[in-house]
Amino acid sequence: MSKTIAINAGSSSLKWQLYEMPAETVIAKGLVERIGLNDSIFTVKYGEGQKYEVVTDIPDHEIAVKMLLDQLIELNILASYDEITGVGHRVVHGGEYFDKSVIIDDDVIAKIEEVAVFAPLHNPAHLMGIRAFKHLLPDIISVAVFDTAFHASMPREAYLYSLPLAYYNDYKVRKYGAHGTSHRYVSQRAADMLEQPIEDLKIITCHLGNGGSITAVKEGKSVDTSMGFTPLAGITMGTRSGDIDAAVLPYLMKKLDIDIDEMLNILNKKSGLLGLTNGLSSDMRDLQDNKDKEDVKVALDIFYDRIRKYIGSYVAAMDGADAIVFTAGIGENSAVVRSEIVKGLSWFGVELDETENAKFGEHIISTKDSKIKVLLIPTDEELMIARDVEALRPSFK
Amino acid sequence: MSKTIAINAGSSSLKWQLYEMPAETVIAKGLVERIGLNDSIFTVKYGEGQKYEVVTDIPDHEIAVKMLLDQLIELNILASYDEITGVGHRVVHGGEYFDKSVIIDDDVIAKIEEVAVFAPLHNPAHLMGIRAFKHLLPDIISVAVFDTAFHASMPREAYLYSLPLAYYNDYKVRKYGAHGTSHRYVSQRAADMLEQPIEDLKIITCHLGNGGSITAVKEGKSVDTSMGFTPLAGITMGTRSGDIDAAVLPYLMKKLDIDIDEMLNILNKKSGLLGLTNGLSSDMRDLQDNKDKEDVKVALDIFYDRIRKYIGSYVAAMDGADAIVFTAGIGENSAVVRSEIVKGLSWFGVELDETENAKFGEHIISTKDSKIKVLLIPTDEELMIARDVEALRPSFK
Repeated sequence: MSKTIAINAGSSSLKWQLYEMPAETVIAKGLVERIGLNDSIFTVKYGEGQKYEVVTDIPDHEIAVKMLLDQLIELNILASYDEITGVGHRVVHGGEYFDKSVIIDDDVIAKIEEVAVFAPLHNPAHLMGIRAFKHLLPDIISVAVFDTAFHASMPREAYLYSLPLAYYNDYKVRKYGAHGTSHRYVSQRAADMLEQPIEDLKIITCHLGNGGSITAVKEGKSVDTSMGFTPLAGITMGTRSGDIDAAVLPYLMKKLDIDIDEMLNILNKKSGLLGLTNGLSSDMRDLQDNKDKEDVKVALDIFYDRIRKYIGSYVAAMDGADAIVFTAGIGENSAVVRSEIVKGLSWFGVELDETENAKFGEHIISTKDSKIKVLLIPTDEELMIARDVEALRPSFK
Repeated sequence: MSKTIAINAGSSSLKWQLYEMPAETVIAKGLVERIGLNDSIFTVKYGEGQKYEVVTDIPDHEIAVKMLLDQLIELNILASYDEITGVGHRVVHGGEYFDKSVIIDDDVIAKIEEVAVFAPLHNPAHLMGIRAFKHLLPDIISVAVFDTAFHASMPREAYLYSLPLAYYNDYKVRKYGAHGTSHRYVSQRAADMLEQPIEDLKIITCHLGNGGSITAVKEGKSVDTSMGFTPLAGITMGTRSGDIDAAVLPYLMKKLDIDIDEMLNILNKKSGLLGLTNGLSSDMRDLQDNKDKEDVKVALDIFYDRIRKYIGSYVAAMDGADAIVFTAGIGENSAVVRSEIVKGLSWFGVELDETENAKFGEHIISTKDSKIKVLLIPTDEELMIARDVEALRPSFK
């Protein structure tokens, strides 16, 4: 028995989940918010719905980590620090260096720093979390689990853009994708649920949250994904435009008299469902509640259309599909969204069982006869992180 | 009997084709190059392979048109100007104003001028051609045939980008598409060849030339197309990047220290197959001759991959497909390209008859059992222009 902690460190936040392994039981979880600001918020959830919360100033990540470890002891969740045998860190970007989770050493830290250029808001924050734990728990295994790693298996024709090749060779401009840990988790679960070896399956995984991406998983490997060099590309998202004609940028920059950074900010933060509904909402629940409004109806039709087209394109990319998986906030919780998307794919032989589709939780939602199975699988990136730590523990010296 | 002339006017060129209608016979055709420069080149082809060519200074489009009309008399192709009963002009961009070909009047000219902002290299040149013919043949019908018109039937969810809605309302930023006259021609021919009413068919038309676009044609109407706000978007082209993550632009602009206009120039002129092969060639024939080279092989794989994915996405967008059509330079002439694309679509039930695929000219190239028929149809945009002129002649006062 061992206790593993999964960490997702942001620039002013630290999200954590403590597992009993290999049982995979969540013993406690929590969130530290507003690190480095006044009135930081420190929360722990544990036991049978118990909650501990305190508001105090937490100046940096190391103090946040120390506070959470001490509080675990205080709350009798741990007897001592020594009970924690491993820590796993979510890392958004691994560049081309990492095709799987790795034990963190100085070289790994240097590489995470190097590729921070591709994820300037995320990687430096992850490093603060990594360093804080390294300092406080120097003797246990520390593992980096990359969002990009699962997509490292994409073939060259999928990850290269049709740009001068030097931009790939010199500047590493290519498709990296995102949400890899989620796509990996749900595709593995899908194979389990279908009781077939993943090596025999072609699966299209739809991670639909405020950000969203679609991945083509062939023989257990990502062979294509809708996010690109950055998470801006792909389907319509809460506030992100997804795919657009790049020639729109200079046209709008001149019309609006803005520079490229402001343009990108609009594409990332003011576009997508939020932009299409004139700022009404980026939240699918709000939009479903307002779908009698013409703009909202069009925004939803666009959302469905883009996802459907990505699904069709990945059936083509893999020359077939055995299963479509829905996961993440929208994918797990909106039966209407799943139904609307699948409704347009009857030619492919996809058919939902609407009774099953109306239910929550992990299960198959297509009919028995559906040629392509459809599955609802709640994602669990934290569990994947804990599992990767456990898997690497034997090789930790 | 009447004679109709189809015109494609560029900024320094004028391409024309003279038809005997309604027989649809080409009586003569020609090209004027280097208009406004020294040593303009004036060519006429007629009769049984006869050719007339002269090099002389032709200062403007009106002089070019006068010269061509006079030469048609000189060569005994026409007895007098009066024999020409109609002229049709290709116009690249009709904005949102035109969903079909129209008789050109002052209002139409004003609108072509207005939307020149979307096609700054093309529309002004077309207007030079239009005005020259109006001046010299003031009494005959003059028709504008728009590349964008066929795509005007796209539904809102297909043509809107996921951007703040104001950019559509205020600046008309949306998907317009291109090659409409070609997609319209080949989809109509496909219905004829399949002996089915076009209203019953879902057709995916692949116009693959140095520029290329894929269109989803449902019930005879374009419902989606791969080119976007401009012809930059969509599949990998000779020198154009097609779809890329817009976030690549600021990253490369900083790395290369270039502005947005230079960036767009690279995406339009130095990317695509040319960029991927390190400048080797944008021409498919050269690449097929060099496909033992690793870069070329990857470039071709990317080209096939993008087209296949668009086909798959349009099967999804239409929820089915009855036919795939290949046309234009590459689509008509490269059996290898057609074969490679279709090879990856076996799950869709697409199967080529390789004996038929090896032949040139208009015919069905799929097997009898192929669930989706595949057709090779040489495009003929000039004929569509002549037909549109003929169709509108009765309403010309």
